[in-house]
Amino acid sequence: MTQVPSEPLVDTLCIVGPGLIGSSVLRAARADGLIARRTIATDIDPAVCARVRELDIADEVDTDPSKAVADADVVMLCVPVGAIAPVARALYPHLKPGAIMTDTGSVKRSVLADLDGALPPGAAYVPAHPMAGTEHSGPDAGFATLFVDRWCLLTPRADTPPDATARIVALWERLGARTRIMDPEHHDNVCAMVSHLPHLIAFTICGTADQLAEDTRGEVLDYAASGFRDFTRVAASDPVMWRDIFLHNREALLAMLDRFRADADAMAEAIRHGDADRIVETIRRGREIRRSLIENRQA
Amino acid sequence: MTQVPSEPLVDTLCIVGPGLIGSSVLRAARADGLIARRTIATDIDPAVCARVRELDIADEVDTDPSKAVADADVVMLCVPVGAIAPVARALYPHLKPGAIMTDTGSVKRSVLADLDGALPPGAAYVPAHPMAGTEHSGPDAGFATLFVDRWCLLTPRADTPPDATARIVALWERLGARTRIMDPEHHDNVCAMVSHLPHLIAFTICGTADQLAEDTRGEVLDYAASGFRDFTRVAASDPVMWRDIFLHNREALLAMLDRFRADADAMAEAIRHGDADRIVETIRRGREIRRSLIENRQA
Repeated sequence: MTQVPSEPLVDTLCIVGPGLIGSSVLRAARADGLIARRTIATDIDPAVCARVRELDIADEVDTDPSKAVADADVVMLCVPVGAIAPVARALYPHLKPGAIMTDTGSVKRSVLADLDGALPPGAAYVPAHPMAGTEHSGPDAGFATLFVDRWCLLTPRADTPPDATARIVALWERLGARTRIMDPEHHDNVCAMVSHLPHLIAFTICGTADQLAEDTRGEVLDYAASGFRDFTRVAASDPVMWRDIFLHNREALLAMLDRFRADADAMAEAIRHGDADRIVETIRRGREIRRSLIENRQA
Repeated sequence: MTQVPSEPLVDTLCIVGPGLIGSSVLRAARADGLIARRTIATDIDPAVCARVRELDIADEVDTDPSKAVADADVVMLCVPVGAIAPVARALYPHLKPGAIMTDTGSVKRSVLADLDGALPPGAAYVPAHPMAGTEHSGPDAGFATLFVDRWCLLTPRADTPPDATARIVALWERLGARTRIMDPEHHDNVCAMVSHLPHLIAFTICGTADQLAEDTRGEVLDYAASGFRDFTRVAASDPVMWRDIFLHNREALLAMLDRFRADADAMAEAIRHGDADRIVETIRRGREIRRSLIENRQA
């Protein structure tokens, strides 16, 4: 835990891509007063910039990212995973000396590999991943308390200056998050299991339902409360964001999917052959996880 | 819609197996007064009978099902799917003339096939499936409003007397449910998609997570809010109930699982080969289903 600061943690904070995550940081900074003295929002989409102006959640809005970052002490990239490395590389030359660039991407290993060696002298890059979100997206979707009691995982590289990491840790704690430092590869494996695989499965089963004959499809909607509905919430998330996550965490995700497919095959075999004990054993295992979550106060 | 009755719909209602569903019917009957003049609960497990007595949710409790049903005008079997046909056949000789037996099972076709030809003269069997429940089970888990605004699907056979079906429809509407008459095979296909397949997948992915290395498993619990948690709620349901559903709806369930597996394989291929368009297309389809649910006021 950091001490309660008496002055803002950051002088000028620039949010690149003020969508659900970025606009939530802006709103929290506006509500708190001790996160940043001044906030700047920028986006390559002029409509997003215009909307952020209308919402009045940033002190300044600049449609040119390279100008927007020039004055910033901390530049936070809140763009889809596939855009992080290209946007970072494009903005490096415009950073001021000593600036810290950070991101909010859900995949770390492949993104860090794409950044290797490109960081300009005097600036630092601190990879971060706030594990928060809803199924909604865009600047209207954000809210100031999005990160409260949620985790933010940081995956600094061997060459990341510890004081830069400490500043970004402090920033996320000020935003209400619990923080943890983690190896990028381990991060990607854990996220493949807790988030990327469940989303892949949810998208897939919604697609399966969608392809049913027209009469059955209508009934799937009528009776969705019987279990199917729980899968549709995660499946409502932003397609471009998830496309990028799937493609950038491809290896860890496909490895987890392979395990899941083997387990689903085993379950199908047990059902086909009427192996009641094996079915009950699998179900009991699932209940254990649920029970652990409840004890963990996560459910 | 039926007219508001001025006297109880049923004189004596016997609940066989007062778990989540059965105890909810008992509680609703106690709360309403116009469902049954008198309720009897019975279970082969003396502990369940004792608990129902403690909870004081039935007018009478009898540990001998064959005696409990002797006086009943409506006998409702609230037992796991695999027990419906054996329990029904065992109790047929003890029914009084003109009694209606009904059930609450989630699978219809195979259960009805097991009942064929066994119904005694003067009595009727009306298959029903209230689509309501929680992840909890047992007599303590029930509540009077469980069925309010939920569906109850009825799958009468060609030889089911229409007035018997009409009485059970009226009973479920009095319990607050919306009712629909449906072909048993169609019922089983729809339920395979909306309920049985999502449960199978949820149990499976919880099992997959459970088998991870100890350190990763702990983190799965810490970070479950990122998507995984939504899968664990349905996975918390009763193992014996779900074992029976999977085994009795085996054909429809395995057919839906095959479709899902083919779709998951296609998604894995798209990710492996970096086919961004195909990934986005699948995700968009899932979002459509979610949007339809919201328009349908189901989400």
